[in-house]
Amino acid sequence: MIKVGIVGGTGYTGVELLRLLAAHPEVEIQAITSRSEKGLPVADMYPNLRGHLDLAFSEPDMSVLTNCDVVFFATPNGIAMTMARELVDAGVKVIDLAADFRIKDINEWSKWYGMEHACPDLVEKAVYGLPEVNRAEIKQAQLIANPGCYPTAVQLGLLPLIENGLIETDNLIADAKSGVSGAGRGAAVATLQAESSESFKAYGVAGHRHLPEIKQGLTIANKADVGLTFVPHLVPMIRGIHATCYARLKDKNVATRLQSLYEKHYANEIFVDVMPAGSFPETRSVKGANYCRIAIHVPQEGDTVVILSVIDNLVKGAAGQAVQNMNIMFGLNENAGLTAIALVP
Amino acid sequence: MIKVGIVGGTGYTGVELLRLLAAHPEVEIQAITSRSEKGLPVADMYPNLRGHLDLAFSEPDMSVLTNCDVVFFATPNGIAMTMARELVDAGVKVIDLAADFRIKDINEWSKWYGMEHACPDLVEKAVYGLPEVNRAEIKQAQLIANPGCYPTAVQLGLLPLIENGLIETDNLIADAKSGVSGAGRGAAVATLQAESSESFKAYGVAGHRHLPEIKQGLTIANKADVGLTFVPHLVPMIRGIHATCYARLKDKNVATRLQSLYEKHYANEIFVDVMPAGSFPETRSVKGANYCRIAIHVPQEGDTVVILSVIDNLVKGAAGQAVQNMNIMFGLNENAGLTAIALVP
Amino acid sequence: MIKVGIVGGTGYTGVELLRLLAAHPEVEIQAITSRSEKGLPVADMYPNLRGHLDLAFSEPDMSVLTNCDVVFFATPNGIAMTMARELVDAGVKVIDLAADFRIKDINEWSKWYGMEHACPDLVEKAVYGLPEVNRAEIKQAQLIANPGCYPTAVQLGLLPLIENGLIETDNLIADAKSGVSGAGRGAAVATLQAESSESFKAYGVAGHRHLPEIKQGLTIANKADVGLTFVPHLVPMIRGIHATCYARLKDKNVATRLQSLYEKHYANEIFVDVMPAGSFPETRSVKGANYCRIAIHVPQEGDTVVILSVIDNLVKGAAGQAVQNMNIMFGLNENAGLTAIALVP
Amino acid sequence: MIKVGIVGGTGYTGVELLRLLAAHPEVEIQAITSRSEKGLPVADMYPNLRGHLDLAFSEPDMSVLTNCDVVFFATPNGIAMTMARELVDAGVKVIDLAADFRIKDINEWSKWYGMEHACPDLVEKAVYGLPEVNRAEIKQAQLIANPGCYPTAVQLGLLPLIENGLIETDNLIADAKSGVSGAGRGAAVATLQAESSESFKAYGVAGHRHLPEIKQGLTIANKADVGLTFVPHLVPMIRGIHATCYARLKDKNVATRLQSLYEKHYANEIFVDVMPAGSFPETRSVKGANYCRIAIHVPQEGDTVVILSVIDNLVKGAAGQAVQNMNIMFGLNENAGLTAIALVP
Repeated sequence: MIKVGIVGGTGYTGVELLRLLAAHPEVEIQAITSRSEKGLPVADMYPNLRGHLDLAFSEPDMSVLTNCDVVFFATPNGIAMTMARELVDAGVKVIDLAADFRIKDINEWSKWYGMEHACPDLVEKAVYGLPEVNRAEIKQAQLIANPGCYPTAVQLGLLPLIENGLIETDNLIADAKSGVSGAGRGAAVATLQAESSESFKAYGVAGHRHLPEIKQGLTIANKADVGLTFVPHLVPMIRGIHATCYARLKDKNVATRLQSLYEKHYANEIFVDVMPAGSFPETRSVKGANYCRIAIHVPQEGDTVVILSVIDNLVKGAAGQAVQNMNIMFGLNENAGLTAIALVP
Repeated sequence: MIKVGIVGGTGYTGVELLRLLAAHPEVEIQAITSRSEKGLPVADMYPNLRGHLDLAFSEPDMSVLTNCDVVFFATPNGIAMTMARELVDAGVKVIDLAADFRIKDINEWSKWYGMEHACPDLVEKAVYGLPEVNRAEIKQAQLIANPGCYPTAVQLGLLPLIENGLIETDNLIADAKSGVSGAGRGAAVATLQAESSESFKAYGVAGHRHLPEIKQGLTIANKADVGLTFVPHLVPMIRGIHATCYARLKDKNVATRLQSLYEKHYANEIFVDVMPAGSFPETRSVKGANYCRIAIHVPQEGDTVVILSVIDNLVKGAAGQAVQNMNIMFGLNENAGLTAIALVP
Repeated sequence: MIKVGIVGGTGYTGVELLRLLAAHPEVEIQAITSRSEKGLPVADMYPNLRGHLDLAFSEPDMSVLTNCDVVFFATPNGIAMTMARELVDAGVKVIDLAADFRIKDINEWSKWYGMEHACPDLVEKAVYGLPEVNRAEIKQAQLIANPGCYPTAVQLGLLPLIENGLIETDNLIADAKSGVSGAGRGAAVATLQAESSESFKAYGVAGHRHLPEIKQGLTIANKADVGLTFVPHLVPMIRGIHATCYARLKDKNVATRLQSLYEKHYANEIFVDVMPAGSFPETRSVKGANYCRIAIHVPQEGDTVVILSVIDNLVKGAAGQAVQNMNIMFGLNENAGLTAIALVP
Repeated sequence: MIKVGIVGGTGYTGVELLRLLAAHPEVEIQAITSRSEKGLPVADMYPNLRGHLDLAFSEPDMSVLTNCDVVFFATPNGIAMTMARELVDAGVKVIDLAADFRIKDINEWSKWYGMEHACPDLVEKAVYGLPEVNRAEIKQAQLIANPGCYPTAVQLGLLPLIENGLIETDNLIADAKSGVSGAGRGAAVATLQAESSESFKAYGVAGHRHLPEIKQGLTIANKADVGLTFVPHLVPMIRGIHATCYARLKDKNVATRLQSLYEKHYANEIFVDVMPAGSFPETRSVKGANYCRIAIHVPQEGDTVVILSVIDNLVKGAAGQAVQNMNIMFGLNENAGLTAIALVP
């Protein structure tokens, strides 16, 4: 059994980790920390865990955490970077679900996250945990930067086009939509049900923190800079991300080959589902499950390709992908603990 | 492996059965029938099943069904009774998720369901599949009448009071609320999102078909007639039933003992969770899971006891309970295939 | 034009007052106060008011408020009682949408609201602003205690039965359900969309502050104490209250006369709609409108009468009723500014 | 008083017309037709109209309709074109809320709508009822083609850029999102609450009927063909459209002038609200109201302009705009009957 610690377990990515790990056949949860909720049984905060998890929140304790095989950080940005070194030095594997290790350019990171980085050298060592891109490196990694939710949906959608050099990359558009759980479990007026339900809006158009992360991933694949306009929107539902990505084909004759190109690209990926031509993936088809479902459209025989990509922001966009990374790091079946079928209806 | 057939798999109880059975460790689904969708891969209708179930809807075929170990009916009322005898005669176990075998009084059944019964003798043999009441009989049964959703929530809530003779039984009140999936997957104006979301209403006050079913169960426990007012309501959410039950205590001094009485009553039941005193069970705490969570209140030091009881109408209120019954009938662990944790948030 | 001041306009009852008063033909809004948002144009917080209201939040200023004809308090409990005397002494009419003046028994009030009352003598003078009960007194009043949302729905539903002495009053049950706007616009985890949508739960069973208010109203009508069990629930929708009230008829033969009794009782009330026999009022049928719609049922030819009563908690349950009270106090048409049709779908 | 007839009043655009016209100070509704619901009081189908409209559905009767001053068609596509000539010949003004007269190119219309056109000559005479573009023609018109919902939001968003020649027009993108009321009130599985709520998806990517309508409007403004990719999505809410439009600026230095350009462009339009720079219009800010609210963004100092445009699909996107057109045609105040403030929360 793999001994697991979770730092910061009261938010939505934390409880989702608990839901997945409590049912994981190879895992033993050793500790789940929360300064503010110290002593509170986890199942008192999350009654869905009653009968499944007999553990209370505890204060972060390095002597406990360093005895784990792996520690997940489900903390706000800026926490993992202050604790990671001690864990790494103790030989513990670390998976950060926040953004501390996602951006390789430290100055860029500081600009977007508004703080100094505590350990730039660890950023260098960290592996960006998108298994469909970096599986080999993940297998060897000791420190994983688990991707953001929007970046997962957008990159999985666009990478086959970019890697194959099929599109103009100076003017990509990612029009992305997220359910409200993406805003987290903090008390806030904007995501009160009376505010956010029965409405739809864009936000962060001037610059969302996931923009540099997406550009970094696309640039690596493109081996050159990319131009990207990224507009996130808030959808009145709890879970799910839908990315609608637009790009211009260099050669519109390639349109008829895209379906098979995507199918081949992801043929060996258990968690990426290229849907039949003409499909419209619904976010509910991945609700609670670790899939990314993708459909490819080239409307009106034109040269604009439209990629539709859906994930559950809390699963493939956060906790599920983190567990997938853990499975890879420990040589388990990649879908261990991740076999749940999406909850429909 | 248990060979399973499902008759009528296109509705919500059908797809929920598929979700549970596709992941059940001891089950092999042999056939899923639908006349109207014959030939359609199940995963084309329910993309959440893509990669989990490689089966198409087929026409009901007795030669296939009689080769199963157990056949589930997820059909409208009145279908199972026309097919059950042949299956029963062939030694196949039958679990009907509709109402054909729930009411022992055939005249009463005919009055509420508006048709002649095709096989009154099988009604007599059928066991009402509420494991917390009839586990021993279920173990021996060949034909199970799987309880309705409201009846499950209300009976599990009220039975401990009635069996212990603690309440006046001439004037029970069950104010019950259900999510819209309870109305089924048929095209209908009343449950269009633009109609039923952002609104709340009662319905069926004059007489809902679950009324005689609940009264039958309570009467057996009471060993005498009970008076019951049952008012169902439609809640603008997909899944979940919340029953708020009101009864008068014969002796208000018993109030302080009710919590421990319920805890003892359900101590050995893995799927009934008596919550701590003062709790308010939320329907989401059982979303997608086979639990019934119950809380007991006696407000204002009065003599009115208020029982709060929640289930997922599609799981403990339908498909999950059906699988639980199957597990009992075949001597499996009662929670085989039913270990999923409710999806929160 | 009536000069109006609003104290505390940033919450939901405040903005609802603004929506109604900005369109009221006889009103001029002089000031809307908020310490925390001083200087902020109201339409910046509530863009729906852009083009309709050119006013900024200001600090409460008695010199401005005492120049108003009427001042509404849309403040938390405990504020109006500290400011009312100065206004009343200055001859300004006061309508308090909070609970400061609702409960005549000062000790009872203090018990439920957890504070000393600042002006018990004003409580005595205050008129409980339920126009269907106290219209004549409201006309003469200088200080109105605007009823709570649940109390409005429950009292309008039960009063005709009680005033006519038709029911046992020792064991009334009000099972009430409210949309999430009833919880207010304060940042809170429990009413985040990711928490409260797609779920249903009871709360406050041990004792909700609206319980003594409802009991007070019913007791006056009954000319004797009443026994009441009141269970509020949270519905995953924004607006609306549905009260399902249960009572036992003294004589079940009266059942057939109840429909016409209610119709006569409310024949002259423009804002109470007794629906046809057999109806199920939906909360959306009053969304944004000042109506209470009521239906009467006596199921299964028994002796339990079931009253269904719906209002919009922010309109007839708060701001709309406050405007109705203002209209009565100033001799305007009772529906001035209140003619909007509910928004369906 | 203007005598109004409505043909086909049972759908959402029909009931929205009724809501607006029943409260319109200059209108008298003469008839509302529905073959299927003949004889049913309108308020029985839509209880929100109880007390506001004392009229029953009637069979379409030309003798009644030709006595109206104006007839609205809230019918499925293909009906208005079979009845319009007789009305027009009788001197009755006609406003079609369906698509029969929107597309000037008859062959194009037939291709998208799959039927022969019954009166191509009337298409020629019809005026496209977007007041912000065609006010003068609307004033003189006898036959109005009321714009589609998506086309209203997208055109109002993009026209200032196109008319001023500021953007490349070969590759426009309109990523549009609509609430479920846009799918109409017909019984359908896809928009059952249990299907469409808590999910998000694109649809009609290959070609939606609003595509040629939008292209026609943009082409006229552009005085040359435009390239447009239009992707509609279904949002889990009842009302509202949010269009996110992307275009490349010919000269990125123009970016800083766009805000004032839009403000001037719409300075005299009461129903178009150009929001302050940096705003994110929410669909709820126009819920139930006839506004289009627009915000202009040029993110990351690039050359891609992002226009956010929101309307209520049933008001400015259908019935409200139809009433606005009527007001213009009859020389009334353009906002007569359209002064309602959006319902928030």
